[in-house]
Amino acid sequence: MAGLVIRPRARILHGHDWVYSSEVLKVFGNPVDGDVISIKDGRDKLLGTAIYNSKSQIVARRYSRRRQDLDLDFFVRRITQAIEWRVNAGCDPTLSRIVWSEADGLPGVVADRYGDVIVLQTLTLGMDQRKDLIVQALAQLPGVATIIERNDAPIRSAEGMELVTSVLFGQDPGDREITLRGIRFGANFLHGQKTGLYLDQADNYAAVARLAQGKRVLDCFSNQGGFALACALNGAAAVTAVESGAESARRLRENTDRNGVTVQTLEADVFEILKDAERAGSQYDLIILDPPSFTKARAKIKDAIRGYHELHLRAARLLAPHGLLATFSCSHHVSAEEFESTVASGLGDARRSARVLARLGQATDHPVVLHLPETHYLKGLIVQLMPGR
Amino acid sequence: MAGLVIRPRARILHGHDWVYSSEVLKVFGNPVDGDVISIKDGRDKLLGTAIYNSKSQIVARRYSRRRQDLDLDFFVRRITQAIEWRVNAGCDPTLSRIVWSEADGLPGVVADRYGDVIVLQTLTLGMDQRKDLIVQALAQLPGVATIIERNDAPIRSAEGMELVTSVLFGQDPGDREITLRGIRFGANFLHGQKTGLYLDQADNYAAVARLAQGKRVLDCFSNQGGFALACALNGAAAVTAVESGAESARRLRENTDRNGVTVQTLEADVFEILKDAERAGSQYDLIILDPPSFTKARAKIKDAIRGYHELHLRAARLLAPHGLLATFSCSHHVSAEEFESTVASGLGDARRSARVLARLGQATDHPVVLHLPETHYLKGLIVQLMPGR
Repeated sequence: MAGLVIRPRARILHGHDWVYSSEVLKVFGNPVDGDVISIKDGRDKLLGTAIYNSKSQIVARRYSRRRQDLDLDFFVRRITQAIEWRVNAGCDPTLSRIVWSEADGLPGVVADRYGDVIVLQTLTLGMDQRKDLIVQALAQLPGVATIIERNDAPIRSAEGMELVTSVLFGQDPGDREITLRGIRFGANFLHGQKTGLYLDQADNYAAVARLAQGKRVLDCFSNQGGFALACALNGAAAVTAVESGAESARRLRENTDRNGVTVQTLEADVFEILKDAERAGSQYDLIILDPPSFTKARAKIKDAIRGYHELHLRAARLLAPHGLLATFSCSHHVSAEEFESTVASGLGDARRSARVLARLGQATDHPVVLHLPETHYLKGLIVQLMPGR
Repeated sequence: MAGLVIRPRARILHGHDWVYSSEVLKVFGNPVDGDVISIKDGRDKLLGTAIYNSKSQIVARRYSRRRQDLDLDFFVRRITQAIEWRVNAGCDPTLSRIVWSEADGLPGVVADRYGDVIVLQTLTLGMDQRKDLIVQALAQLPGVATIIERNDAPIRSAEGMELVTSVLFGQDPGDREITLRGIRFGANFLHGQKTGLYLDQADNYAAVARLAQGKRVLDCFSNQGGFALACALNGAAAVTAVESGAESARRLRENTDRNGVTVQTLEADVFEILKDAERAGSQYDLIILDPPSFTKARAKIKDAIRGYHELHLRAARLLAPHGLLATFSCSHHVSAEEFESTVASGLGDARRSARVLARLGQATDHPVVLHLPETHYLKGLIVQLMPGR
């Protein structure tokens, strides 16, 4: 088997599963992109088996500490383990992310299940080349009628793959209605803007909505409306949702009707709405900030943090004396500490103090792997203002 | 009113409530230690009112952004707000920390309530000098029969105060039994080793115990036995508790009897027990690591982290293939990120991978203030090994 010899001090020697090109001491046996390769240390000791892609920044992703082929048996085993783990952790295996990449030992393979439909992404070349085996393994799961590939994530370009969506198994299910934690959403898995719902935020919708009763709620970057709908369903006094995308705003309005609730949808830029509300002297009891990832690149982190700071400063000014702020960051480039200190400085510059009511993360079906801090991408905070301090 | 003029870039200008001696530009009006003082910026703008102590590293602690005296009315108001906040947050106001220092706008004042008993600490000179007013305010709370001061925390020496314990109101209640989240503990508030129970870990006892059913549990640094007892009460197959302190081990055995459960108590050093267990080839399904604060000083953090690393390395080697590790750090000098990366490297050096099942913190009655990161001291992680990766 071809492979790589790793430099001393590489992260994979300390428990990580990735090899960056700068960490390679030697390539042996002429591996081809997409190949299964061996990873060895300088003393020829096997560190495990990985998939290779010289075009990626991460040239090798280890999926086993032993010698291990990527055959059907392997995929069936790993997928079974992933589902078993979720069942034990209390997830519904027919409505959750059933496979999540490195966290399930299948780097680049993401499979979300919505009833009889599985939406699949293969985001690494090694896994993309073995898509047939993965589909074969997934199709064996009881009750699966359709497997759709949504391989249109821009990240695929970085691995040198094309963007493609198609039906890999069964028939296009067309428009569907999915009920997630009591909230009804419309979804079109093949043609919709997204691969489905925001499963990673499902528990957080509920956590925020529990605090919404009788409150005036402003949901910023509302997208499909998860937070706004959850709050409206939980007895909020009034809910305003801000969403700048025309397609998302349309879906948000549809979802509002679907749930039989009242949500005022503003199709506009969040910063503009916050400025307008301040001029108008509006006040809210609960503001939700769930912006799209401000940055996909570590290099742009300073701009992202500036944007976050302003967002929190402006939102804080609109909060009632005991007001609540539920805020999220979904970029793994922004650490939990950076995120919290940015929220603190935004509120601080608005001369507001606040207590932390809850620290939130991604839902259980997106498990964080301790040795891969990159898997911890979603951070959330619910804080409550302390008036008169 | 005497006071301080603050240097530019001081933390208090960005929302914090502390002034370090290095942040003072000028002292005016000759304040005496313990005085209420004004805090001003370089343009003579009032930043708030604080208590002063030139002997402390933190020379001033702000408790209000306005001009505010420390009179009975103020203490009654702040204590009432603190209790109201806890009731709203779902805490039992007769069994919780009802006042927690900066988090409740009363820097240095800590009050824990156990039924009709309040255990009080006044850890800053300014508050210690006003102990009578604080006792008067607390004694007004319905159902309070006794107020005990446990001012024997070594931190008082740093503020230039003596160590003292006494009954400030009512009678010494002697030995008591307290039931916290279904677990019975013995407590002697006046003479016991501690001010009472570990209220900050109360929710975490339950979170860990939920995972303990049918498991072989090893509880390290068990102290009063909170985790061990919770696991035994929740159907663990076997529970071993390690506690090196003779007095704590005695109490742990008493608490075991009190709860009618079986816990094997080892009065020994945790590192020695972990080494012995490895030699003997013992295995556990759930290991709990809740060490006392390895460091009270930022300077000693490297030693603390080395200790943590070894602890996790040794514990990981004793875990069964799908074993669980529940681990805590109670030093605010160790950030959540440092803590997690230390746990990761300890497990990594034991060649184990793990998924994060839960991130835990201190209980709700110890609220974290966003602008005072020091208030976020307790960090916890529950991780599960991923065999065969």
